[in-house]
Amino acid sequence: MVKTRAVIDEYDTYVPGRSKKEITDKYGIDADDILKLGSNENPWGASKKAQKAVAECAIEMNRYPESNHEYLKEKIAQYAGVRQNQVIVTGDGADELLDIIAKTLISEGDEFIVHPPTYTYYEYTFKLYNAKPVYARWDVETNTLDVDSVLDAITDKTKVIFLCTPNNPTGGLISHDDIVRIVEATDALVVVDEAYWEFAEVNNVDLLDKYDNVLLLRTFSKVMGLAGLRVGYGLASPELLEKISRIKPVFSVTVPSQKAVLATLDDKEYIEESTRKSIEEREYLYESVKAIDGLDIYASKSNYLLVDLHDSGYTAAEITEALMKRGVIVRDCTSFRDLDEYYMRISIETHPKNERFIEILKEVIDERRN
Amino acid sequence: MVKTRAVIDEYDTYVPGRSKKEITDKYGIDADDILKLGSNENPWGASKKAQKAVAECAIEMNRYPESNHEYLKEKIAQYAGVRQNQVIVTGDGADELLDIIAKTLISEGDEFIVHPPTYTYYEYTFKLYNAKPVYARWDVETNTLDVDSVLDAITDKTKVIFLCTPNNPTGGLISHDDIVRIVEATDALVVVDEAYWEFAEVNNVDLLDKYDNVLLLRTFSKVMGLAGLRVGYGLASPELLEKISRIKPVFSVTVPSQKAVLATLDDKEYIEESTRKSIEEREYLYESVKAIDGLDIYASKSNYLLVDLHDSGYTAAEITEALMKRGVIVRDCTSFRDLDEYYMRISIETHPKNERFIEILKEVIDERRN
Repeated sequence: MVKTRAVIDEYDTYVPGRSKKEITDKYGIDADDILKLGSNENPWGASKKAQKAVAECAIEMNRYPESNHEYLKEKIAQYAGVRQNQVIVTGDGADELLDIIAKTLISEGDEFIVHPPTYTYYEYTFKLYNAKPVYARWDVETNTLDVDSVLDAITDKTKVIFLCTPNNPTGGLISHDDIVRIVEATDALVVVDEAYWEFAEVNNVDLLDKYDNVLLLRTFSKVMGLAGLRVGYGLASPELLEKISRIKPVFSVTVPSQKAVLATLDDKEYIEESTRKSIEEREYLYESVKAIDGLDIYASKSNYLLVDLHDSGYTAAEITEALMKRGVIVRDCTSFRDLDEYYMRISIETHPKNERFIEILKEVIDERRN
Repeated sequence: MVKTRAVIDEYDTYVPGRSKKEITDKYGIDADDILKLGSNENPWGASKKAQKAVAECAIEMNRYPESNHEYLKEKIAQYAGVRQNQVIVTGDGADELLDIIAKTLISEGDEFIVHPPTYTYYEYTFKLYNAKPVYARWDVETNTLDVDSVLDAITDKTKVIFLCTPNNPTGGLISHDDIVRIVEATDALVVVDEAYWEFAEVNNVDLLDKYDNVLLLRTFSKVMGLAGLRVGYGLASPELLEKISRIKPVFSVTVPSQKAVLATLDDKEYIEESTRKSIEEREYLYESVKAIDGLDIYASKSNYLLVDLHDSGYTAAEITEALMKRGVIVRDCTSFRDLDEYYMRISIETHPKNERFIEILKEVIDERRN
């Protein structure tokens, strides 16, 4: 056996949300009947224009994709309200961007700051570069960032600070003022993960013209409805992006992905409607879960909500299993650092599916309480 | 400005083949009129079944892709003649696999062996992990690997040895016996890059059952006609693949990519015909270029050929430019280590386009010689 690095031998594999196929295989439930509230997707499907663009590009897929992404960057710059040279486009959603940020900035022994519970892929990616995670604190009760805990965590070894707003999986926002406090307190790169910003209807793009140590992380996997096509983007200073571009994968954004992104950005109506419906469904789920005895739910600015199960009689693993048997996928949050085994995350489905989910959830809760 | 790693500041950016769009933008030539002999693609387009599968999956692309790749691995195992647990599937073609091999095996100061001139992405990827390239020798004149130069390059720091067969950009093969000699001489991982094996009609898959330090690198970008969808795969021991899987990107193979791969593997006729036609066109190009005064060409077992320009009156940069003006893309090989500025690589196009290419090439050569 080839000798692998020590860090690999005890690596915590990333735990993704469950797929429909898993449920179909395990419980024999038809894929069309499954309610998927596990992965924070856009449940209404991609833009029709994007679907058409993908179907039409099938004839070109024997050729390598464009690698300089000029058109993509131009369109994204317009959408985001920045200049074209402040944009970088990546494959594998924003996850690839995390990897190439690490490649650009991290040497062995460097530190990065995260505020658990938050998106676990930061740590999954950065630990492979022998970077040391330093934990700041997200106050789950108030659903806000403990800003001082971030400021206190900064050392001269800090290379990257991750701020997730809206925070996944809790749904709370980090205020613009708090981000500025952190950005001004460090020379490290502050990565503001705005994957879900459209659902909050606020962002921090104005920081780009004032600070060169800010990178906004964005994705086409959420409101844009293209999770299956894996495109992310970053907004930052041209100088930093030029460096990152030197070492990024050359062809990682596929031909259909590029076409779909261009078509989606041309479909303003789709983006607006997706945003509006997502917010409506989020509020519907919030009110409906709140009304269920034994469950507590956190207000959210995103397209998912964190549910507190402490008084439900279920652990997250138990309720996830009970729901899965009934064809419902939610996210067990046990793998999120600093959440105990009594939290699940639910994301929005279409309205009829959300109604059905609430019915099933009530049944499941009733079962254990009686 | 955020402080980037020293290695980034002087990094040699990867030089990809030119795209049709570049030529259209620069010379105003219609994309349909461009002859693209630069990127070793399948010029006949993807399998019709794959095109259909991609068009049909547009409705699912709002959902994350399957991440365990069970169906894909099953089909690929059948095609390759291995067991399912000997297969790993990656996004971004085989290039992602190079990156995760580095992540799995490389610590700072480790060495890897390459035999220039060869595929430059090995070095592009591995140097970012602070690994040191050690250069073995490919004998361009005989178009064979100098096996002793590989054996002599092995030290106790060698972690990975790259053997490219057919070798890109020269088209020569490494014999099975020579690979065995190298595999038996080391505990390092021997990565046998078989991206183009179908055009040679020989491979080294039998090594997998005898040696646990071999990994075969494969791709769907060449004979399979899916360069634009970015899917690669590796064949190796289940123990090694389990380790690599712990740290691989979770969702990097897009929904259309997965569907297209499955459909292509079901289309045996397409694969056979693509192979046959590619070999025919390769031989046509070989004979035709050989007949041109001032040009020399190397026999190839792949879908591209190396052309020696020393007696043509052109450098590679000059002839590349002269051809581009006439709507022809070829690959200037100056960026390949251990080739001087007098080599270009041509890959196959469809037959009418190859005929047209030969005409244009003759014109260009005549111009300089008169």
